[in-house]
Amino acid sequence: MGNTFGKLFQIHTYGESHGPALGVVIDGCPAGLTIDEAFIQSELDRRKPGQSKITTQRKEADEFEIVSGVFEGKTTGTPISIIIRNKDQKSKDYSHIADKFRPSHADYTFHTKYGVRDYRGGGRSSARETVARVAAGAIAKLLLKHYGVSCQAYVSQVGSLQLQKKYTELNLATAEDNIVRCPDSATASAMIELIDETRKNRDTIGGIVTGVIQGVPAGLGEPVFDKLHAELGKAMLSINAVKGFEYGSGFEGVKMKGSEHNDAFYTENDHVKTKTNYSGGIQGGISNGEDIYFNVAFKPVATIMQDQESINEAGETVVVSGKGRHDPCVVPRAVPIVEAMSALVIADYLLISRSNRLN
Amino acid sequence: MGNTFGKLFQIHTYGESHGPALGVVIDGCPAGLTIDEAFIQSELDRRKPGQSKITTQRKEADEFEIVSGVFEGKTTGTPISIIIRNKDQKSKDYSHIADKFRPSHADYTFHTKYGVRDYRGGGRSSARETVARVAAGAIAKLLLKHYGVSCQAYVSQVGSLQLQKKYTELNLATAEDNIVRCPDSATASAMIELIDETRKNRDTIGGIVTGVIQGVPAGLGEPVFDKLHAELGKAMLSINAVKGFEYGSGFEGVKMKGSEHNDAFYTENDHVKTKTNYSGGIQGGISNGEDIYFNVAFKPVATIMQDQESINEAGETVVVSGKGRHDPCVVPRAVPIVEAMSALVIADYLLISRSNRLN
Amino acid sequence: MGNTFGKLFQIHTYGESHGPALGVVIDGCPAGLTIDEAFIQSELDRRKPGQSKITTQRKEADEFEIVSGVFEGKTTGTPISIIIRNKDQKSKDYSHIADKFRPSHADYTFHTKYGVRDYRGGGRSSARETVARVAAGAIAKLLLKHYGVSCQAYVSQVGSLQLQKKYTELNLATAEDNIVRCPDSATASAMIELIDETRKNRDTIGGIVTGVIQGVPAGLGEPVFDKLHAELGKAMLSINAVKGFEYGSGFEGVKMKGSEHNDAFYTENDHVKTKTNYSGGIQGGISNGEDIYFNVAFKPVATIMQDQESINEAGETVVVSGKGRHDPCVVPRAVPIVEAMSALVIADYLLISRSNRLN
Amino acid sequence: MGNTFGKLFQIHTYGESHGPALGVVIDGCPAGLTIDEAFIQSELDRRKPGQSKITTQRKEADEFEIVSGVFEGKTTGTPISIIIRNKDQKSKDYSHIADKFRPSHADYTFHTKYGVRDYRGGGRSSARETVARVAAGAIAKLLLKHYGVSCQAYVSQVGSLQLQKKYTELNLATAEDNIVRCPDSATASAMIELIDETRKNRDTIGGIVTGVIQGVPAGLGEPVFDKLHAELGKAMLSINAVKGFEYGSGFEGVKMKGSEHNDAFYTENDHVKTKTNYSGGIQGGISNGEDIYFNVAFKPVATIMQDQESINEAGETVVVSGKGRHDPCVVPRAVPIVEAMSALVIADYLLISRSNRLN
Repeated sequence: MGNTFGKLFQIHTYGESHGPALGVVIDGCPAGLTIDEAFIQSELDRRKPGQSKITTQRKEADEFEIVSGVFEGKTTGTPISIIIRNKDQKSKDYSHIADKFRPSHADYTFHTKYGVRDYRGGGRSSARETVARVAAGAIAKLLLKHYGVSCQAYVSQVGSLQLQKKYTELNLATAEDNIVRCPDSATASAMIELIDETRKNRDTIGGIVTGVIQGVPAGLGEPVFDKLHAELGKAMLSINAVKGFEYGSGFEGVKMKGSEHNDAFYTENDHVKTKTNYSGGIQGGISNGEDIYFNVAFKPVATIMQDQESINEAGETVVVSGKGRHDPCVVPRAVPIVEAMSALVIADYLLISRSNRLN
Repeated sequence: MGNTFGKLFQIHTYGESHGPALGVVIDGCPAGLTIDEAFIQSELDRRKPGQSKITTQRKEADEFEIVSGVFEGKTTGTPISIIIRNKDQKSKDYSHIADKFRPSHADYTFHTKYGVRDYRGGGRSSARETVARVAAGAIAKLLLKHYGVSCQAYVSQVGSLQLQKKYTELNLATAEDNIVRCPDSATASAMIELIDETRKNRDTIGGIVTGVIQGVPAGLGEPVFDKLHAELGKAMLSINAVKGFEYGSGFEGVKMKGSEHNDAFYTENDHVKTKTNYSGGIQGGISNGEDIYFNVAFKPVATIMQDQESINEAGETVVVSGKGRHDPCVVPRAVPIVEAMSALVIADYLLISRSNRLN
Repeated sequence: MGNTFGKLFQIHTYGESHGPALGVVIDGCPAGLTIDEAFIQSELDRRKPGQSKITTQRKEADEFEIVSGVFEGKTTGTPISIIIRNKDQKSKDYSHIADKFRPSHADYTFHTKYGVRDYRGGGRSSARETVARVAAGAIAKLLLKHYGVSCQAYVSQVGSLQLQKKYTELNLATAEDNIVRCPDSATASAMIELIDETRKNRDTIGGIVTGVIQGVPAGLGEPVFDKLHAELGKAMLSINAVKGFEYGSGFEGVKMKGSEHNDAFYTENDHVKTKTNYSGGIQGGISNGEDIYFNVAFKPVATIMQDQESINEAGETVVVSGKGRHDPCVVPRAVPIVEAMSALVIADYLLISRSNRLN
Repeated sequence: MGNTFGKLFQIHTYGESHGPALGVVIDGCPAGLTIDEAFIQSELDRRKPGQSKITTQRKEADEFEIVSGVFEGKTTGTPISIIIRNKDQKSKDYSHIADKFRPSHADYTFHTKYGVRDYRGGGRSSARETVARVAAGAIAKLLLKHYGVSCQAYVSQVGSLQLQKKYTELNLATAEDNIVRCPDSATASAMIELIDETRKNRDTIGGIVTGVIQGVPAGLGEPVFDKLHAELGKAMLSINAVKGFEYGSGFEGVKMKGSEHNDAFYTENDHVKTKTNYSGGIQGGISNGEDIYFNVAFKPVATIMQDQESINEAGETVVVSGKGRHDPCVVPRAVPIVEAMSALVIADYLLISRSNRLN
């Protein structure tokens, strides 16, 4: 259950870390959208493992195949099925933990819930699952591009090392210029050093990804349970290792007074704008046309290259040794995933908003 | 759209702040549950306006009527419809803002989305909508009580004033002993003073509510998009004025190393436990049997008793004057709402988990 | 579960035959629709009991109250909640069957499913539940009227007495001219006589309602599981006492050859038409602009004014005696229900179709 | 949209007749079910083209690959993705109709809805889509077998040639003994002759498939919109070429009196039974433990080997010539599809029913 995301622009994902393949079925993409396959591959490349010294060394080309829903280069309105074959799975790496519960992994909870589990590389609980999200997100991005909406993200914190500038002070496009994906080269260098040092210490570290969505027309979102930021929050919290989400003024906003926090409306060239944007582009769950921005907190990866005490399925005390290929810090590779989930949320609400009124 | 929450224990809410009534239809509550009407009323009383000097002075008894789904004191498995009549609406209070967009309210976004709107007291965007959630949450709490699960919440921060103790160091039941609902009397007094001072300054202030869910069996939740904490996060972010959600180690967790953050498993009397609980009771989106705890950030209320510059529907600059009856700080009354949404999420996943396995 | 119908124009119903009230929450009706309350009442009047000698003698005014979602006469885009109070429930009529299973009623299946049940008048399984559908259907009809779509129905068969003309040979508006709702006065008279005679024999009889939907634009419907006729069929089969559904050529169509059954396309004044309409206005699950027509089969009402042998909850043989107020034949009152469900289906697909393409 | 079926045992299908592949993602199958791959293949073989002289001559092995959700032969509770590659597509066969609307096909409605379409073999509107349903249905059948439920179907009518025996008078297993799948050898021979003659006349003919579901426990189904027979009806009406559905007494039942039609309850060895079964095993939308039986009407296939007049996208009159490989009558191959859809419905309701009560 729960492998579906979205209501009208809806995706269904499947696949395990060390199974034959992962994939996604996208149902509800409007007909007539030109599919740029090179763009989809470039998005997958941004997420794929083995990109740099600060990511896992698993090698996956993450080549994809579209097996339905596209005809003569355009979407037909029928489900778009994209499949990505696993190539470099090394299942033997996991035989030593087949009946052990790794600390802070999903081994124990899967075991409790299902009784059986595919222990190889975490099976379905692996972040490898997000390859399907990025493929689907690429389609959503193509749709949004048609409507002038962009979804960008970057690393704004690694451990305690925090980027001091706000997104409005940065050139977000430069995030791709370095391997940690921080759009400030000095901070980026420090972050890379911190991650590399952590890796050498056979440890891992957390971080924050900031997302920015621009060009969203006013009026997207729903007023009660499906508030735009509530769905965005769920989307982000559904990404592996995420522990928190805040948008606009976020947790800092609680310290403010209403008189400081309120965003005053004004009109410029017949466009309604706000002087400040503590609202983060969303008021009452509905977009107001300003930039939507948010932070996503990622915990340190649970797999560390150290011995840890734990238990096995029989409840006996065991040692889990640190093996396998893993990221010392997930945030660099999480950037395209955050973007993908953003795009999926906005694409969905864009279609939903077509039902707002009589026409 | 989006007035539904939950998949199997599902609620549908309706009603405007100044319309005739608000209500909820609960579909999917298992048959055979004894309904304690006094308990439902006590939950509504915890949320209702006019409780104390630090809440809005609107007077609503918030008496409810169950019009279906309960027979001879027990649920029948058919939809439970609960209706709460508005009694103290003063719509005239709002005629001065009928065509104005109040700053950081949903006036402009509703106008953009729907073309028409019920401007009286914010209509559907009013936090008065949450009365229906609390009524439904009370039913969910009764269901959870049957299974030994409790959902509690308390105020842990107002403005910059932060409760220094963790939930494990507090007697949560004492939160109800003071009007701000902080389970530490000294901190509570300071919070009350801060809110009252803010009110006298015709301003508002934000705060944080901490939630704690205890007794959840291991194995609730879904591994991918519908992770237990993702749905919990969406539930919280759907409450009016919420700007952020974090669970377990949350945003602070990003600063930690994996070797510090990992929760080691051990066995005690045949029960699997973890030595620490940075995971917040959820691993891979599925409960592990430990306590689930989380923070919810609320912004300062947008309505302040001061004049503010804004625009009207015609795009002209206007002054919005501070009138009406509003809370200077929402967190005291948000406590039962956070509990209600927690209970709704857990009740839903409890039913969903019945499909996990062959039996 | 399952008290919701529709995806974008979505309704949630609640209420029992002898409880305080029944009602519906309509979520997803576009904003800006003018609500004609007199029309809603007139639709409810067409369905209400006690209309004539051939319907049940229970007296219900079926007056409704709209408690949300409409402001200054127009829909606001928020949920429209409509409540109808029960007035003439006579629960004592049912004490004699409190623990008995009436033949071909839902007593036994409700008991098996839920363990408890509201036995008064069938509780939730009563056709009284359809009052909420008709209220919601009236809103859907108002929406469809805006788009030039009409949903009509009439009685085409009672017992073995079959109306010999097709809908294209009839003036459908005249169906309302007689109490059996058959648009052919001679056949209507015979039908009324047959029902009245059956009633006098303390028995009941079945019948067929034919539905006709006109003005549906080409392109509504979905190609696979949610074919327009599949959803229409589900809608009809969800009405109490329905045993079958067919559209277009229906069951008779199986006897035809492809060369006879195929509907040839031609163009008239730039409009695409078909020479015949065995397809019933739907091809591949999607409307083609021709009339949609279908038949709905209703079984004889299970409550008869005769003694019947059955069992009770203890499994003992008992006699169920014929008491209470019931219809000798449901089809006259089913006509507005069939129309309501048609309108709900088309309204939903009309909104869904807005997502078909890039725009 | 609408490529999903089911609520808890949920399937998502994709793929076009002449695209690279078709497939299905099954989400919600309980963990721990042993997967018998030979059985899945045998089900696909029953549906595959080229089986006999009375089916299409397209050759497809319909070999499948499970790419997720099964580990060491058992389901893991995560999505089961099954892919079937197209091998014998001959797209050139369709170039002559690329811009023509074939009579009674979905060409025109797809064109109207989506603007673009994959015209090769009908694309997504082709009955080839049902290969994915049969694969998913095979998994559902394995689940149902675990609970003692069987879903069978057979051909009961071809054109006007009707099998005179009821299902209770037949050995349903013998349906597989002949190529038309009628469990009465004399009638089967006549049917085969009729279809073959029709084929030689370059024409097609309709028919009826009867379905029988046995072993369903009492208490499955939902009382209002999601009545068990309503969902079953939708499932059947969603199959290509279906024009009607009836269950239990069906259309014939309308001619009966209540006193004849009512099914009297009695107890046998502590089991509740009914003396007759006009209810078709379902009362008030919920199963009563008796056999569920129903009829599904299929129209004659629209593709005939004759020239037909039609129009093209420009609205010009054109001739559509009869080419390609098609079934002269769909019912023999529809038998496993009807069974598959039955199994999917029952599997879903079986899981849903786990939420009925407190436990």
